Amino acid sequence: VRVVTLTTELGLTDWFVGVIKGVLFGLNPRVQIVDISHAIAPGDIRSGAFALASSYASFPRRTIHVAVVDPGVGGPRRAIAVEAGKYIFIGPDNGVLSLAIGQEKIQSMHWLEESRYFRGAISNTFHGRDIFAPVAGHISRGVPLSRLGPTAQELLKLSWPEPRGDRNTIHGQVIYLDHFGNAITNIRWELIESWPAQQIQIMAGRRRISEVSKAYQEVDAGSPVVVINSSGLLEIAVNRGNAAKALGLKIGSTVALRTHREIVAGKFSQPPSQRAS
Amino acid sequence: VRVVTLTTELGLTDWFVGVIKGVLFGLNPRVQIVDISHAIAPGDIRSGAFALASSYASFPRRTIHVAVVDPGVGGPRRAIAVEAGKYIFIGPDNGVLSLAIGQEKIQSMHWLEESRYFRGAISNTFHGRDIFAPVAGHISRGVPLSRLGPTAQELLKLSWPEPRGDRNTIHGQVIYLDHFGNAITNIRWELIESWPAQQIQIMAGRRRISEVSKAYQEVDAGSPVVVINSSGLLEIAVNRGNAAKALGLKIGSTVALRTHREIVAGKFSQPPSQRAS
Amino acid sequence: VRVVTLTTELGLTDWFVGVIKGVLFGLNPRVQIVDISHAIAPGDIRSGAFALASSYASFPRRTIHVAVVDPGVGGPRRAIAVEAGKYIFIGPDNGVLSLAIGQEKIQSMHWLEESRYFRGAISNTFHGRDIFAPVAGHISRGVPLSRLGPTAQELLKLSWPEPRGDRNTIHGQVIYLDHFGNAITNIRWELIESWPAQQIQIMAGRRRISEVSKAYQEVDAGSPVVVINSSGLLEIAVNRGNAAKALGLKIGSTVALRTHREIVAGKFSQPPSQRAS
Repeated sequence: VRVVTLTTELGLTDWFVGVIKGVLFGLNPRVQIVDISHAIAPGDIRSGAFALASSYASFPRRTIHVAVVDPGVGGPRRAIAVEAGKYIFIGPDNGVLSLAIGQEKIQSMHWLEESRYFRGAISNTFHGRDIFAPVAGHISRGVPLSRLGPTAQELLKLSWPEPRGDRNTIHGQVIYLDHFGNAITNIRWELIESWPAQQIQIMAGRRRISEVSKAYQEVDAGSPVVVINSSGLLEIAVNRGNAAKALGLKIGSTVALRTHREIVAGKFSQPPSQRAS
Repeated sequence: VRVVTLTTELGLTDWFVGVIKGVLFGLNPRVQIVDISHAIAPGDIRSGAFALASSYASFPRRTIHVAVVDPGVGGPRRAIAVEAGKYIFIGPDNGVLSLAIGQEKIQSMHWLEESRYFRGAISNTFHGRDIFAPVAGHISRGVPLSRLGPTAQELLKLSWPEPRGDRNTIHGQVIYLDHFGNAITNIRWELIESWPAQQIQIMAGRRRISEVSKAYQEVDAGSPVVVINSSGLLEIAVNRGNAAKALGLKIGSTVALRTHREIVAGKFSQPPSQRAS
Repeated sequence: VRVVTLTTELGLTDWFVGVIKGVLFGLNPRVQIVDISHAIAPGDIRSGAFALASSYASFPRRTIHVAVVDPGVGGPRRAIAVEAGKYIFIGPDNGVLSLAIGQEKIQSMHWLEESRYFRGAISNTFHGRDIFAPVAGHISRGVPLSRLGPTAQELLKLSWPEPRGDRNTIHGQVIYLDHFGNAITNIRWELIESWPAQQIQIMAGRRRISEVSKAYQEVDAGSPVVVINSSGLLEIAVNRGNAAKALGLKIGSTVALRTHREIVAGKFSQPPSQRAS
């Protein structure tokens, strides 16, 4: 049994996702299909890339991850299949795969060019149905990547905001707002691993939070709280509340951290004003 | 083939539900996973409990029902697995399982404590991925509940509004508004089984409805209608319309019934003013 | 392995769709269930019919397509199962199946009357659970349609707006707005197959577009573009934008085409004012 995941901008109101699944089952009725998200905003390659990067590693070995966030469909962008780590990734070469693949060792990359693995008739508007689903179906049946087209030398990489800082201060930003209103930042827990959790000050949305907590429950309901989330990223939340709304956080909002020593020395200034990413 | 259902507050916009399924398929690629709902409002244990109680019995014997409505994640609340009737229930011990389990005979209950059945690293923010999905996967492969942790003596029970009344009058309330705007009440059909359907008056949202109908179609389009719904509960609807909007009904709105005899005697007063549940 | 698809008005917030799947798996745990859409507006038989007609043919041979857009549930409308082309269609006989079936050759049609293939107790409000899902489950296990009830002579057909025109001019209308805001018309590509793509003028929402493009990408981001979509229908879009919003298009909005010759002769007038379908 092979798992195929879907991360798309296609929404759940129309028949598009269903059609992709129909094509997949037509080629291999024994795959297990998992929806990662179909609510990526149209053309929002960054959010699609982040959703895939946050989830792909929870799937079993040999899972085929298909991404259809494809604002350039029908244009010159190429389509690609990549074997990296223990997974296969399929999608447009527009950066949507690059965040996940960047965390793995690439074994092989091939352009999708052999039309015998595509749908008979190929539209210029729906490559999810006509190229990505058929290719995923064929791969699930054992077609090696090398048959799909020539070796690709390079994957288009998404530019991604990295936190800046030093031993005592970090400036990062909000990169994703989830369904609960939790604001996920680009600050990985390893960056503050050696910092004493109770001697960290966090500035987020002009609000000062005085420590990194172990769980939402460590503060009263309605209070802001900073935790290391399930992806290992610093997250601004409100216990039983919506941090994005309560603290006015947006994608791109600055989040700044300083250690106690800096706090004592009074060196921790207001974060720069917020900017959209 | 084993069925696993999911009832969560996790929404469908992020990758959280996909990750739970990835973990499940990693442990058992042959389960069939069914989404009951992922649209339970964050922390709304009552709605989660009601959705599960309304649906669990439509699934085949040995289905594993997983509930992740978990506002206390990372705090002191315990996690539990319960065998009741012909099903297994897994979730936080916060009441979300209790409505469904209350309709069945409990065979065994165990706290989830044996970390060998959990994910290797356990976050404090996402026990759906780290505890409930792995435990469900292991159970689907045959691990008995007794291996998961010590026997639990008691399940936390949700307080639930019961209708009040006598042989001729019932006061209940709206407990759920569905996608169509139908207002489901806590009045079970057995309570009025012996009442003549055409001699019942219903007061809902200050609107008087003069009988219990067999189907929405028994009234004109746009008219209010009271039926016994597919769960055996009295439901206020508007044929081809939205009762919640048209009649101003909310969770907690009072719904009162009286039989003909009471009607004739003029004893049926206005229902008490609406209150939130 | 047999595929069963679901096209419903049931939404994804309540437990209704999950229950249908539970019933299906109870009868046949090896089916693969695919959601086509559960976001059909309550009672919107046309949109349900269009979603099904746009997707059914992407599924493997012998797929069972179940439609639950059923505003007349509990009333006199009948339920039907139809074998047409290489598929089975199941649903209320209210037109929701007719657009898809109209594209195939009917082999047999039977009313659903044999209650031994239904749920034990049948509600008047949820035939998706009580009739359509059980019937689909039984068919997936090999029960022939002829056992379900008497032969049906006629299927209720949805009236559907057809484009009008001649060799040089076509007047059609918008029949569906998708998740991206693309406006799908009822004008099939065959109608303009012989027209030179660059010598077609399109009037939509009082906007004039001067050719039919091969892909969204052929115009600048933010510009209107007309393409033949993945279903073979003329579609008004905005590259990386929302055509419905940008051009004020609605279901029923007139879309008119004329060829170059007509353009040169100045015969192409404003389309009639918009009307709702």
